[in-house]
Amino acid sequence: MLIDGQATRTIQPVGDGAVEIIDQTLLPHAVERVRLSALDDYLHAIKDMLVRGAPLIGVTAAFGLARALMDDASDAGLDTAVAALAATRPTAVNLFWALERVSQVVRPLALSARADAAHAEAVAIAEEDVAACRAIGEHGAALIEAAARDAKWPVNVLTHCNAGWLATVDWGTALAPIYVAAERGVAVHVWVDETRPRNQGAALTAFELGQQGIAHTVIVDNVGGHLMQHGLVQLVITGADRVTANGDAANKIGTYLKALAAKDNGVPFHVAAPLSTIDWRLSDGVREIAIEERDAREVTWMAGRTADGARAEVQVVAPGSPAANFAFDVTPARLITGFITEFGLAAPDELAGRWGPRVAARA
Amino acid sequence: MLIDGQATRTIQPVGDGAVEIIDQTLLPHAVERVRLSALDDYLHAIKDMLVRGAPLIGVTAAFGLARALMDDASDAGLDTAVAALAATRPTAVNLFWALERVSQVVRPLALSARADAAHAEAVAIAEEDVAACRAIGEHGAALIEAAARDAKWPVNVLTHCNAGWLATVDWGTALAPIYVAAERGVAVHVWVDETRPRNQGAALTAFELGQQGIAHTVIVDNVGGHLMQHGLVQLVITGADRVTANGDAANKIGTYLKALAAKDNGVPFHVAAPLSTIDWRLSDGVREIAIEERDAREVTWMAGRTADGARAEVQVVAPGSPAANFAFDVTPARLITGFITEFGLAAPDELAGRWGPRVAARA
Repeated sequence: MLIDGQATRTIQPVGDGAVEIIDQTLLPHAVERVRLSALDDYLHAIKDMLVRGAPLIGVTAAFGLARALMDDASDAGLDTAVAALAATRPTAVNLFWALERVSQVVRPLALSARADAAHAEAVAIAEEDVAACRAIGEHGAALIEAAARDAKWPVNVLTHCNAGWLATVDWGTALAPIYVAAERGVAVHVWVDETRPRNQGAALTAFELGQQGIAHTVIVDNVGGHLMQHGLVQLVITGADRVTANGDAANKIGTYLKALAAKDNGVPFHVAAPLSTIDWRLSDGVREIAIEERDAREVTWMAGRTADGARAEVQVVAPGSPAANFAFDVTPARLITGFITEFGLAAPDELAGRWGPRVAARA
Repeated sequence: MLIDGQATRTIQPVGDGAVEIIDQTLLPHAVERVRLSALDDYLHAIKDMLVRGAPLIGVTAAFGLARALMDDASDAGLDTAVAALAATRPTAVNLFWALERVSQVVRPLALSARADAAHAEAVAIAEEDVAACRAIGEHGAALIEAAARDAKWPVNVLTHCNAGWLATVDWGTALAPIYVAAERGVAVHVWVDETRPRNQGAALTAFELGQQGIAHTVIVDNVGGHLMQHGLVQLVITGADRVTANGDAANKIGTYLKALAAKDNGVPFHVAAPLSTIDWRLSDGVREIAIEERDAREVTWMAGRTADGARAEVQVVAPGSPAANFAFDVTPARLITGFITEFGLAAPDELAGRWGPRVAARA
């Protein structure tokens, strides 16, 4: 997608085992490209969240592993690099998945062939991510086009958090349908939930949309229900962190409240996510998905930029008052109109029949 | 209520037409008492929000008018002072109501008697506010006591925004039942919605509860639904800015989303408000109550205190991205379990039959 009018990916190989990334800790206030040249650079980039978003973390780790094998392609070198990369972010599933995938490819090979093969696999993982996100975009864009035929222009889409290209290599998940629809000439306006406490909507989604020239308005997380009551939302599209076999979806805290408001006002509520997000072992999201509790300081202090351009944090909660910080909630399948996957659209109760593990086993 | 262990009201006469208030613009980070001695002090206090909350604004204006009449008790002096006080906050209904009430009392009197009579009327308005809030507290406390009998201790009450004593003279509305229940020995824990964009929950409600020693936890506005899904909320109590005859309630933006979550999870949802909040002419809140749109800067910038104690504002939205700032939303009566008024409890469909204008006309 575009930054300052230039087609950009969140991670781009630049030769010699190096990649260029965007330091996302500085967004939206500064766009700074950083070159990751040595394994330590990769470790730092993942650990300190210069890159974030499960797909992007996985891809970065794959490139980091390839770079490490340039210095030491032995089994011991491979194991050491995998361990170091795996230790950067303990909960990101894509990280472990990508490291495992690259390891399986290179381990049978001669030492001299390993680094190049690892790099090629990292490139493949990145390209597959781009293709899956693009496919989600195309399937989802059809929903926006249909809404454009029914509604007065522009189509107002509400989204929560950031499931945009900055969390992936390109296109994103929840925002991909918006980008593809805009590409096809549909007039879209996006209501961007601020997404407290980490403000990914206000900071990242708003930045992404602004850079693509897509009309959008930032609102606090309290506003969506009011907008839906007044016919100002035609479609809700969010991402998901984990989906159960029956179609319950865990996503950023507050998603459930927007799904309730959508249901109450007859607004379609869609979840955009690749099939890899579905955990086929689970069938009751509210009971079975453990919700991460994060540091209360994310609630009590808020980061931003002062009028003179300096980064600063301010305390916004009464001193001495405790805070709790639940990171996700679960939206029950009964509130979800449909899922937008890289293979097409499906209602929650169609997921398992169409793409479930038993179907895959038969294929 | 208590500040630093001292029983305090938000406004207190101190002789010679002066009152002492708390400069609420400095809360929660500093408690500074300010004396309003001249009419200009009163005008500044209301206009610049040293006092806020409709009931408190009305009481402050009444004392300000009494003070002005000490200098010039003529009809012209009265009219000039009323006009100046009325111009401080153009939308606060209680402001106009209080000025009108004091004017009607003093206008028939001899000039020499006017200032004292106005002061006495201001004191009466303040005392009536305290009594109404205390009565709301007592009626509402019964709900919390009942929940305490049913639930495992403590009773978790969720509230949105600040409808506490700082918005009134003492006790508050939504928080009054909590204060009275605590006084009666019920163990209460309050989930305090941050209440973006102005953070009245994080700043004022948390401060109030901390000062009274009542257990509470600040959460971002996205969290309430998750808590209710997991049985962590026994009761929701909010205030209201305006209630229709059929029981739709306009309150701080985001209240509707919490009411939806309460309904979805079988959690009782109560609105605490004096009968003066009911606009008997209205019967469809979503259609008939105009929702104020405020300055987008309240969304894009956030005020707080830096680590070195200075007050600062930081920009939290991507530069260049527009924001919208709807101040209130309407919770339909079908989502409201009941109202807590100074005269007792009532379901939404009982309001008009019990206290409506036709009932009042018959009485």
